[in-house]
Amino acid sequence: MPDDDAPDDTRTLALSGALARTAGEVAAYIDAAIAASGGPGERLAASMRHATLAGGKRLRPFLVVESAALFGVPHAKALPAAAALECIHCYSLVHDDLPAMDDDDLRRGQPTVHRAYDEATAILAGDGLLTLAFEILAREEAGPDAQVRIALVGSLARAAGVAGMIGGQMLDLAAEGRFANGAPLDLPAEAIIELQAMKTGALLRQACEAGALLGRADDAGRDALDRYARAVGRAFQIADDLLDVEGEAGTVGKAVGKDAAAGKATLVGKLGVDGARAELARLVREAEEALAGFGTAATLLVEAAYFVAARRN
Amino acid sequence: MPDDDAPDDTRTLALSGALARTAGEVAAYIDAAIAASGGPGERLAASMRHATLAGGKRLRPFLVVESAALFGVPHAKALPAAAALECIHCYSLVHDDLPAMDDDDLRRGQPTVHRAYDEATAILAGDGLLTLAFEILAREEAGPDAQVRIALVGSLARAAGVAGMIGGQMLDLAAEGRFANGAPLDLPAEAIIELQAMKTGALLRQACEAGALLGRADDAGRDALDRYARAVGRAFQIADDLLDVEGEAGTVGKAVGKDAAAGKATLVGKLGVDGARAELARLVREAEEALAGFGTAATLLVEAAYFVAARRN
Repeated sequence: MPDDDAPDDTRTLALSGALARTAGEVAAYIDAAIAASGGPGERLAASMRHATLAGGKRLRPFLVVESAALFGVPHAKALPAAAALECIHCYSLVHDDLPAMDDDDLRRGQPTVHRAYDEATAILAGDGLLTLAFEILAREEAGPDAQVRIALVGSLARAAGVAGMIGGQMLDLAAEGRFANGAPLDLPAEAIIELQAMKTGALLRQACEAGALLGRADDAGRDALDRYARAVGRAFQIADDLLDVEGEAGTVGKAVGKDAAAGKATLVGKLGVDGARAELARLVREAEEALAGFGTAATLLVEAAYFVAARRN
Repeated sequence: MPDDDAPDDTRTLALSGALARTAGEVAAYIDAAIAASGGPGERLAASMRHATLAGGKRLRPFLVVESAALFGVPHAKALPAAAALECIHCYSLVHDDLPAMDDDDLRRGQPTVHRAYDEATAILAGDGLLTLAFEILAREEAGPDAQVRIALVGSLARAAGVAGMIGGQMLDLAAEGRFANGAPLDLPAEAIIELQAMKTGALLRQACEAGALLGRADDAGRDALDRYARAVGRAFQIADDLLDVEGEAGTVGKAVGKDAAAGKATLVGKLGVDGARAELARLVREAEEALAGFGTAATLLVEAAYFVAARRN
């Protein structure tokens, strides 16, 4: 991002505080949910905590909470849906890090679950978090009535499923040349956008959709949020790819330079660093415009779009 | 089972027909659900079909459908919940078969998913089926109203989660000595029953609970079904352990003798073959008694208990 697009210090401070607040509340919620789910033995629960409580920006839960707030939903009422989404996000990281997948040793500056524990435990911890997400949504505290809760279940399952995150990860592996003859797919830019929208964007869009469902938004409100979420999702992925090209492992908290080494398709590879930065700036403006109708109530969400584009880890 | 406890030919024929009918309908439902979930590319969908459509008795969906029928729920209305449960069962087999877990090459006489495809695809296929189960339950066709559907989600998530199937699998690995100092846990018979109830029993109990939820059963109806399901779950596990000791791979359709080789705790190991057979006979009688109040409407469910105890594959 050019510096003149960066938020000023006061606004950044407000966003940081709001992010930190949601992060703390979601971590506490997930911690309690793992305890309440009543599994036997300590190892599985400990590995699920390792996967979910080792930090992270909690951007997705923040988007749930703030999207719901646009429609007057109190913070606490949106927490279960926020925590469920974060469980899905964290499970996907655990499984993506597995030796048979991306084979990563480091995540958020900590050993990945299969390194800290073992592969079998990591598989089950991921399965456990995926299942826990739906257990959380089924509880009465997850929504004002059963109609909203079951809509949240459907929304999350579609976003996390084969038409969303899982399908995107499968395409990503295919693009690396992991299947068939082993040659990386040379994808056109449009196909890369589609792939990234599925893999990363699906959960970010679900975050805003969950907020709209909790707030019983009308079609216009839902569409505005979805337009915002699509732009943020694309910005997130481009920023991530730029970090992989330009970042240092110590700052980023995970291995860098892996995409190029794996022959992985990225928009940065197609557009170049400058082209990717220009696209980032365009996406942030698009996110801001999408929420213009909400006025100052959307300030934190707009700040979050700037934050996503400018992030350094 | 002693021969005098075996069902006569007519009753067996009725059960076989009913099992085959449900098996066919559930397979068709899952096949359509995989197509409708709209994932990209063929490999992921094909691996999910491999995991779900390669046969199997479909005992769990049968229990859903027949439990619901006790309360007058038409067959077709119970199919989505039955298919969702079968997706969970099949995903658990895919992940349990992985090299890092039980490392099995053969399942239902076919190559396991990671052998037919690859490990990354098997992990994602399992994740995809687990997610698809909840996507199915969120659809309107899965229940008469949102209240029933969200209750089904909660019931399935608890049964499949860390307090149920996943927790049981984790304990099972611990009992093999896979963690810590590597020594198999020498568990008392009561602990083995508990472990098996969690791993195998949780989903069988959920099958009957789903039927009770769909049928809006009262407490007495639900309790009777749960007592039946607990007995069937234990019988199922003992029969499975006996097959591991006495069966031949060609008949059983998967590797045998693995439990003893892995030092895995089983009730057969503790009670001996004769003791296990006596316990099987007792459990079948218990299952039959639990449903006595339903009269002849429960005939197929009672037959299923005999079938489970007597099965040879």
